[in-house]
Amino acid sequence: MLQLTPEGCRARRESLIAAAEVDLIVINNPRHIFYLTGMFSTQLLLSAWGPLTLLIDARSGRTTLVAHDAIAGQAATAYVDERRIWGWYNSGKAAGPGGDLFGGGLKALNDALPTLDGLRVGVENGWLPHGTPIREARDLNAILAGLRRRKHPDELALIREAIRVTEAGHRAARAAIRPGATELQVFNAIQDALTDACGHAVHLIGDFVSGERARGIGGFASTRVIQAGEVMIADLFPIVNGYRADFTATIPASDSVTPEQMQLDAALNAALRAAETLLKPGVVGGDVYRIVQQTLDAHGFAAHFPHHAGHGLGLDHPEAPYFVPLSDEALVEGDVVTVEPGAYGAAFAGRIENNYLITADGFERLTNHQTTLY
Amino acid sequence: MLQLTPEGCRARRESLIAAAEVDLIVINNPRHIFYLTGMFSTQLLLSAWGPLTLLIDARSGRTTLVAHDAIAGQAATAYVDERRIWGWYNSGKAAGPGGDLFGGGLKALNDALPTLDGLRVGVENGWLPHGTPIREARDLNAILAGLRRRKHPDELALIREAIRVTEAGHRAARAAIRPGATELQVFNAIQDALTDACGHAVHLIGDFVSGERARGIGGFASTRVIQAGEVMIADLFPIVNGYRADFTATIPASDSVTPEQMQLDAALNAALRAAETLLKPGVVGGDVYRIVQQTLDAHGFAAHFPHHAGHGLGLDHPEAPYFVPLSDEALVEGDVVTVEPGAYGAAFAGRIENNYLITADGFERLTNHQTTLY
Repeated sequence: MLQLTPEGCRARRESLIAAAEVDLIVINNPRHIFYLTGMFSTQLLLSAWGPLTLLIDARSGRTTLVAHDAIAGQAATAYVDERRIWGWYNSGKAAGPGGDLFGGGLKALNDALPTLDGLRVGVENGWLPHGTPIREARDLNAILAGLRRRKHPDELALIREAIRVTEAGHRAARAAIRPGATELQVFNAIQDALTDACGHAVHLIGDFVSGERARGIGGFASTRVIQAGEVMIADLFPIVNGYRADFTATIPASDSVTPEQMQLDAALNAALRAAETLLKPGVVGGDVYRIVQQTLDAHGFAAHFPHHAGHGLGLDHPEAPYFVPLSDEALVEGDVVTVEPGAYGAAFAGRIENNYLITADGFERLTNHQTTLY
Repeated sequence: MLQLTPEGCRARRESLIAAAEVDLIVINNPRHIFYLTGMFSTQLLLSAWGPLTLLIDARSGRTTLVAHDAIAGQAATAYVDERRIWGWYNSGKAAGPGGDLFGGGLKALNDALPTLDGLRVGVENGWLPHGTPIREARDLNAILAGLRRRKHPDELALIREAIRVTEAGHRAARAAIRPGATELQVFNAIQDALTDACGHAVHLIGDFVSGERARGIGGFASTRVIQAGEVMIADLFPIVNGYRADFTATIPASDSVTPEQMQLDAALNAALRAAETLLKPGVVGGDVYRIVQQTLDAHGFAAHFPHHAGHGLGLDHPEAPYFVPLSDEALVEGDVVTVEPGAYGAAFAGRIENNYLITADGFERLTNHQTTLY
């Protein structure tokens, strides 16, 4: 299982310390604890995902992880100087008695905090819980969001792995989508392929909609039976080792689709190529949106393009930068982004999506799945 | 898709109001927002799962849900009097610009709070974020944990459905576990069966360990090839419509296993039957642990029983009551619990687990999968 590296985690902590300009950093978002220490746990168990704190002494760089005993094993994988494990449940030694997970996490955080007199403190607004002695604090959300955009080598390795795994899912989707198959059968084929490609369980979410359901943009797989002449939109965004891939194909169930669907296929691929001409540092997100919109407009589909043209990708989905009309965020080297033109009408429905790494002077396309119907 | 009912949500809110003895209740744990309003979203997308607030005016019963625009559709399914939707991203109208999700959620919460002068406020410690005008507040974690133990009819319907779906997964496991299969192939077969039984995607976590890996109690499925004479521990705890099932079988790969493994099979099933004699209101969790331990001891396996004997189940896993030595929690009518004896050694490894509803004078066994090897 691919992991973040000690060097990458250290470099990210140093960047955070340099940008935060505080004496003490308190991190409570489990995604950011993963980002800064390499400790990953599934968000499907809130007992593992929830009440964690990472303290970073910004003057010395010293790190302290506060976690409960039921996840002591995962905490042992974190690249930190100290672990403070508090007793919540301890099923491993069958002791117990089991108590208040979240209130207990707050108390453990308070016990681990140093004396705050005169310390400048940085926190994540919305994540630091109520009830600590911290009063005035600098909000680190914007700093962390900015740091997350410039992907480090170990992060890129995880994203490339997530994409490799997801490409196997797209191949499985193309093989499984045929008249008579249900959306759920296609979903199962995709999920099995992801797991096989990854070597361990992958939790898949995404849009799996066929026929008239595809006109609704997205949705989970259903028991709907796919018919000849229809398409299915397969937009896969699994979590693989803590990072996301997110890319889409519109896949025909048989050898022919409506003429409008063929026209849309050309329009979507033209929009993707048009967007690629803007993928470089300095271009703002709103302009990427507009070139997608204008290309779809030129092909007669603008009135049918109801969503974003793409977004950043990494620990979460979506995240900055956003390709929406009001976005004035400039692309930076290290951004990983998706571009996803789509259009939805009575006689057509489709969306395609690639993932890209923004480089010093342009982009590298990270995804290699088929974006055309045929 | 089965859902919580308006009547169930109202009854749970009324119980919370009665127990909290405050004027204003502020709920931030998404599980509890689901519990009290019926609004479910997947925790795999933190943009959907994260920054939510439910305000309950305890004097009038009036409810206000604070959510961002990207999950306005899910918020529309909540049984609440008012929805305050704030602008985070709005990809649906492709507006944007996209901003600070968690800081934005905090600001939206503050904007939605009434004047607090003289109000008694109840919050969830560890969930209410730092940075609100709330100062002194009553912690509702223990009250909510207590209410959650007495399952309402609509919750039981969801738990029974989760168990029905998970039983299909166990049947698939028994069919798939054979010499030459990998743990991952078994995992895929289980996951496909869950999804087919449910009619929509189910996210599966659990323990899927065979051969010498089974001696380690648990772990995710790997590429290990199962051999003749071995067993696989299949402990399935998926989330189905927001509620958990959690039950286990130890399944042989072929027609024979070691004599020690056969002895363990008898011991585990005896321990399960012994625990059932104690499953009724008033019995404390520590006593359930001890009867399991003593039964395994009588069969010669006590030194090999390193974990809890079971726990409560519902919105999360594990949750109160806990069957561990130090637990003095008494069972109550409405508890849904698991009992899971297990033992792990050089020549044997196994665990079995049922789920039970505690009734007025005993229990109803909810699970019907095979707990014996053969």
